[in-house]
Amino acid sequence: MNKQLRSRLANILGEKNVLTDADSRQQFGQDWTRFFAPNPSAIVFPASTEQVRDLVLLARQEAISLVPSGGRTGLSGGAVAQQEELVVSFNRMNRIGDFDETDAIVEVEAGVITADLQAFAETKGLMYPVDFASSGSSQLGGNIATNAGGIRVLRYGLTRNWVAGLKVVTGAGEILDLNKGLVKNATGYDLRHLFIGSEGTLGFITEARVQLTQPPQGGLMAALLAVPGMVDVIAIMRAFRQEVTLTAFEFLSDNALDHVIRHSQRQRPFANPSNYYVLLEFEASHPAADLAQAAFASCVEKGWVTDGLMSQSEAQRLEFWQYRELISAAITPFTPHKNDVSVRPSVVPACLAQIEQLVKSTQFEIVWFGHIGDGNLHLNILKPDGMAIGEFKQQCAGLNSQVLEVVAGLGGSISAEHGVGLLKRDQLHFTRSSEEVNIMRAIKAVLDPDGIMNPGKLLP
Amino acid sequence: MNKQLRSRLANILGEKNVLTDADSRQQFGQDWTRFFAPNPSAIVFPASTEQVRDLVLLARQEAISLVPSGGRTGLSGGAVAQQEELVVSFNRMNRIGDFDETDAIVEVEAGVITADLQAFAETKGLMYPVDFASSGSSQLGGNIATNAGGIRVLRYGLTRNWVAGLKVVTGAGEILDLNKGLVKNATGYDLRHLFIGSEGTLGFITEARVQLTQPPQGGLMAALLAVPGMVDVIAIMRAFRQEVTLTAFEFLSDNALDHVIRHSQRQRPFANPSNYYVLLEFEASHPAADLAQAAFASCVEKGWVTDGLMSQSEAQRLEFWQYRELISAAITPFTPHKNDVSVRPSVVPACLAQIEQLVKSTQFEIVWFGHIGDGNLHLNILKPDGMAIGEFKQQCAGLNSQVLEVVAGLGGSISAEHGVGLLKRDQLHFTRSSEEVNIMRAIKAVLDPDGIMNPGKLLP
Repeated sequence: MNKQLRSRLANILGEKNVLTDADSRQQFGQDWTRFFAPNPSAIVFPASTEQVRDLVLLARQEAISLVPSGGRTGLSGGAVAQQEELVVSFNRMNRIGDFDETDAIVEVEAGVITADLQAFAETKGLMYPVDFASSGSSQLGGNIATNAGGIRVLRYGLTRNWVAGLKVVTGAGEILDLNKGLVKNATGYDLRHLFIGSEGTLGFITEARVQLTQPPQGGLMAALLAVPGMVDVIAIMRAFRQEVTLTAFEFLSDNALDHVIRHSQRQRPFANPSNYYVLLEFEASHPAADLAQAAFASCVEKGWVTDGLMSQSEAQRLEFWQYRELISAAITPFTPHKNDVSVRPSVVPACLAQIEQLVKSTQFEIVWFGHIGDGNLHLNILKPDGMAIGEFKQQCAGLNSQVLEVVAGLGGSISAEHGVGLLKRDQLHFTRSSEEVNIMRAIKAVLDPDGIMNPGKLLP
Repeated sequence: MNKQLRSRLANILGEKNVLTDADSRQQFGQDWTRFFAPNPSAIVFPASTEQVRDLVLLARQEAISLVPSGGRTGLSGGAVAQQEELVVSFNRMNRIGDFDETDAIVEVEAGVITADLQAFAETKGLMYPVDFASSGSSQLGGNIATNAGGIRVLRYGLTRNWVAGLKVVTGAGEILDLNKGLVKNATGYDLRHLFIGSEGTLGFITEARVQLTQPPQGGLMAALLAVPGMVDVIAIMRAFRQEVTLTAFEFLSDNALDHVIRHSQRQRPFANPSNYYVLLEFEASHPAADLAQAAFASCVEKGWVTDGLMSQSEAQRLEFWQYRELISAAITPFTPHKNDVSVRPSVVPACLAQIEQLVKSTQFEIVWFGHIGDGNLHLNILKPDGMAIGEFKQQCAGLNSQVLEVVAGLGGSISAEHGVGLLKRDQLHFTRSSEEVNIMRAIKAVLDPDGIMNPGKLLP
């Protein structure tokens, strides 16, 4: 980076908020993906929306590309800087601001960590219900920019549902204060929703008004079920949904459980193995436990469920979740090729069957898990021992196209909750039409006329 | 309309689906507003998305402006055709299509009437929860195009929340199939949300996938409360919200009740008048009634509530609603100047106080009611006996600007749920910045390059 530019950045932010050392460039130049070599020109740390605006205006003048950087927990390369872009980190914009009890809305800066917001909500007797594995390091700005989902979508929806207002800096360097925390606001295009899920390609989210909610009365309970057939998983979901308020409905394949058991040296939860397992969770206010028990009995009677456990304590509920949450860590040593697709929940069995058919011909081991209630399937193809990683990747690429064609044919999406970023940019066409992609491009040109906001991401 | 054009329209739709008679032009050229003289060139009745596409392509070739026409229950002139536009009625596109029990999603055409969808949901043991006074004639396409709200927003949100997929024809004549009923779909800009609330200015909604939900267990109960002070209304809402699941929290002023009593020859619900009344409704599953009773007792003890009634039957619950729902009909003879503004709920008392101060100086009678839980206030200024309507309108216009300045100063919106249309187009600047309006214009240019889709509406 030339001295003059560095000095202009320092003028905006202060000398110590511009980093160009190799360690920082390595650290802030990438997210959780490891497919791209980070190579940013520098990392800058603004402290306010106005400083972000000044950065964007400078970037326009100097034709510099900007990459936003939150908790960098993304799984699609959305926060990767590999072409000497300037990384804009929101680490310093981590203030939790005004909270109003009547509105149950809190103002946060983009760099607030998800778990910190969850903890803040608890101090007010409320809940921020969006939760996922990376809550301890992901930031709100990134969550909003990718419309993060997670484990409670079935009950509480995606991040989108909880954004009552957004402050953004567009690629034109304009500050927009969108929706301002209003419940009702029928005054034209809701630009807030355009920025949610836009992955930093239209502008950067700097502040948000986040809606909080009442936590469930009476806590939560969980059940772990052994299920022989995938078609029955849907019937089970419907049987429980009629009786209790489900907060999660997850499934995993038998080998997924197997990997967790070996990885964490746990005991198998059931004496006999089953093709699939369901982990479901529900609000435990009286008489939900009895109703869930009755639903369970009815599922056993119909042959949909062969064995099951109901959590008898909070500790046991959390223990059940371990079978689901440890899968990723357990299969990491096998360099899995990950996929994150979605279809309508009703189509899940057909989708699984068609993809299993495809994978069968390849002799790869495939580990399934996912959020059935949301139609979100995580497909993990494990690298066979002894296969070179290059060969594995190549074979996966071919298989991947076939998988995405199945998903497209069933009206699904190539990315359920991981976004597009760099990793899926060239797959977008599978499930978004060319007309849609052209419209997205034209909208980007409106909000980012110089194409400096996270260029190369999302749009092919 | 010239013969050649008429014949081209007839080629697309069939002769009998093109009307140009005076009665039809009067009927289909306007909505519930009565400020604009209808003057469409013709009304056309497509039967499919493809026919709508063909109409748009023809309109582009011939430079014809199109106005969408649903149930025409709008209150802002969004469906008014006064400049020889071609009106596209969705009356023939009224099919309720595929329904999936697992997804609880139903496919509807844009012309399906809200009440018909509600009735369909009931036959499936489900509920379409968006409800408002015009449900008997409003159409789903119009509801979505204005993001309709209504009386259950507090519990179920706006129409936006229930749209799982949209089929639209853009102003470029392209058919977009958006989101396809998916829960999770992280593949870039969610164009579905751009069309929701766009008032037909970007394209026409032709089909939708609508999410249905479980009805509340144990039915609903309502309470009617006499409340001396507006500040206390907010405290009351919070007290009840902590104990029960509120489905509505409405307020009305004493003279609003007075008008209803005289109009409908009812008895006053309470012996003594009160400045305000609250109508609240909650889910009645056990032990909600006891909890609501306790909240009521606590509100009385604190002096927030001076009298109250709890519904003892479904008939009484519906009777309570009459006090709220008959207000509009009761004040219609007074040619009210209506307003539909919103602020954050916490700001409602300040907003009311400031606006009452403004109105006081004018000696007009002002009738208040609204959805406090959503921060949505309906302000009605009644025309004094003997004042000429022109003089009244002129005075209201001046007052209106002052009211909207108050709303803007409190971070509110000039239109909570009635949209912008023709009526509020020139007021948009009060609560949307010039940057936002310019972005909206540019987005319209992307989706409606020739400016033929409901021109002159929404954008100044």
